[in-house]
This record gives sequence, structure tokens and C-alpha cells, in this order.
Amino acid sequence: MGDEIIFLDFWPSMFGMRVRIALAEKGLKYEHREEDLRNKSPLLLETNPVHKKIPVLIHNGKPICESLMIVEYIDEVWKDESPLLPSDPYQRAQARFWADYVDKKVFALGRMVWRTTGEEQEEITKEYLECLKVLEGELGDKSYFGGEKFGFVDVALMPFYIWFYAYETLGNFSVEAKCPKLIAWAKRCMEKESVSSSLPDRHKVYEFLLEFKKLNGIE
Amino acid sequence: MGDEIIFLDFWPSMFGMRVRIALAEKGLKYEHREEDLRNKSPLLLETNPVHKKIPVLIHNGKPICESLMIVEYIDEVWKDESPLLPSDPYQRAQARFWADYVDKKVFALGRMVWRTTGEEQEEITKEYLECLKVLEGELGDKSYFGGEKFGFVDVALMPFYIWFYAYETLGNFSVEAKCPKLIAWAKRCMEKESVSSSLPDRHKVYEFLLEFKKLNGIE
Repeated sequence: MGDEIIFLDFWPSMFGMRVRIALAEKGLKYEHREEDLRNKSPLLLETNPVHKKIPVLIHNGKPICESLMIVEYIDEVWKDESPLLPSDPYQRAQARFWADYVDKKVFALGRMVWRTTGEEQEEITKEYLECLKVLEGELGDKSYFGGEKFGFVDVALMPFYIWFYAYETLGNFSVEAKCPKLIAWAKRCMEKESVSSSLPDRHKVYEFLLEFKKLNGIE
Repeated sequence: MGDEIIFLDFWPSMFGMRVRIALAEKGLKYEHREEDLRNKSPLLLETNPVHKKIPVLIHNGKPICESLMIVEYIDEVWKDESPLLPSDPYQRAQARFWADYVDKKVFALGRMVWRTTGEEQEEITKEYLECLKVLEGELGDKSYFGGEKFGFVDVALMPFYIWFYAYETLGNFSVEAKCPKLIAWAKRCMEKESVSSSLPDRHKVYEFLLEFKKLNGIE
């Protein structure tokens, strides 16, 4: 097709990781450009003038922003290879609901785990684990969130697994102790080349977070 | 088709209004159930156990939650009548981006307009108008956000027009003075029966908000 795909990314970003996994699932070749978020490139500012954030996918010169919308776009354009969203409208709505839940809860609570200390952190950690428990309940005994095949919700949630180590270390808790099935799911996903090759080492993410906290004066 | 559609709603909710407009655009008959949010029905708690919020659409016994996902579901199931999302993947991604912008900015800033006072309110009001200006820029000289036809972003944003009067009165500003093209767009939308018949009177919304503030001790 002669598609030109440029992807503006930042390696520890969960949102960037989602797009990396989707591109790998579809077997797409692309030009990867790592952004320095303290000195954003003119291309980033020009292609995402509203939010000025990565990830941005530029497909044949046209920019798409916001990770879940990029993943859905990729799924719609390259629909024959490894479909991520189900074809049934009700199941599609369910997949979108749970991906949105990941953004509204898993992301929002996760960043509070390492921004708080003491009793406040204990409260947040409890809430965070409860929200993962809800996801584990939705997963149930299925192999993946959509059933037998890796799909949209898996793409949306998997990057957070890589961050668990940092959260667990800073918050002093274990996701596996509370949600063993969720961790089994994550390990199943990691067996896929498209997933494991798209995600950074969790220890590096932890080191990045320690450095980030120091630079931003977060105790 | 013999579809059974039950819709759990609350009349001043922008999110409920979106679904009302979408159902009207598709010409669908449904059973409307008004919720008392201080005493939520067992059906609401059962069909949206995660967020416990309206709107919920129950189609042939299956619940769909979150307004934009409900609108997209309606559009996918009844796709032949008045399509709301464009068929082109890039334009679809753009429509989703702007609808998401409405949630992240117009809603979030709007509720801060009437929760603040004094200098803080002035700052928020300024930010609120700037965010509407961004939307006006995206609208440009088009009739509707998607072009010549009423669509997804129009559905997502129109309910907020009904709330402008309350915001303007409490924040002491005029949207029309800053964004005349946006107001012209809103009036154009209001000429559609599907829109005007789905939205409450703006003075009633203002009265509701005054009462809500009083009940919740917000000065």
C-alpha cells in the first residue's frame, strides 16, 4: 500500500505502549520517533496542538491523537490482520467500556499510588487493588478479556502490568497476592511476541519513575 | 425488529441528553425511566454496577453504559438511519477525538465555573471560553462539526449549550460575545426536531443548578 507511518512516542508511556502493541499485532512497519517531553519536537506540537502529548500516529501525513482512538483507527484501517475489536456492536461497546475503565480508574489511581505516602497511600493502594479486582472479575475464566483471542481491552491494560513493579515497590503491596488470575492473564499476554517486544523492562520503568520523582520533587 | 429499549435517564444530565438526541435521530421508540439519583433504582445499580451512573441503555435486556459508547452503539446497531459517525476511519478518529475533548475540557471546566467564586472563577471562566474557542476553530465555516450533516460531535456537544445559560448567569459572562459562530451552530442544531425535543428548557436547568448548589452547600 506504500503507507507512511510515523509514530511519536516516549518509551515509559503506557499510552505509547498501547499503540506499539497494536502496530505489532498488525505487523506494520513504521518510523519510531522518541520524544523528549521536556523539549517537545515541532512535529509533536504541530500534530497535537490541542493536548501537546504523545502518542501521535501520523499516517500518510495525517495525525491521529489519544491512544485508544489510535488503536481503534489502526484496527479499522488494517481490519483483516488480527482484529482487535469484536464485530458485534454489543461486544464492541463492552470492550470500549472496559478500556475506558482502565483510563478512568487504573491510570488515575495508579499515579496516585506513587504521589502519596503514609495513610493516604494505604487508602489509595487499597482502592487501586479493588479496581484491579473488578477487572479480574470481568476477565473471569477467559483467556483474554474478549474471550479466546487477544483484543482491545488486553491492548489497553497490558502496559499497566509493566508499571505494576514500580507501583508495588513504592506502595509496598503485591498485585499477584490479591489478583492471581490477572497476573496469569498478563503472563499469557507476555508470551505473545507482539506484546513482549513492545514493552520495556519493568525495572527500567521503576528506575525512570524514581528519577522522575526526584526531578519533580515528589517525596 | 421487536426491539425492547429501556433508557435510564435524569433530565438535567448532559450525558442523558446525548442519548436522547441519538435515539430521536434514529427515530427509535423506547421506554424512558427517570432516575432519582438520591435513591437509585435496583435496575440502575444492577445494570451499571461499576459506575452506578445514568445514562444506561438496556437493549433487549443487555445494558450499555457511558454516554459516548451508548451513542456509538446506537449508531452501529441502527446504522442505516441518520448515520452519526462518518464511514472514513480518519474522520471517525477525528470525531471521537473532539467528543472526548468535550468530556475532558467542556464538561470538566464547566462544572468548575459554578463551583468557584471570585478570582478563581474568573480564571476558570477564561479557560472555559478558550476551550470553547478551540471548538469554534474546529467548527470553522462548516454547518456541523462533521461537515454538512449533523453527527457525532454535534450530539456530544449540544447538551452543553443548554447549560450555557446557567454557567453564564453564575459566572457573569457571555459565550456568544466570545464565540458567535458556536452559538450560530447551536441555534442551527436546535432547528432540528430530534434536538429541540430532546433537550430541557435552559431556565429549568438553571433553576435545577441553583437548587443543587443549595442542597450541597456550594456558595
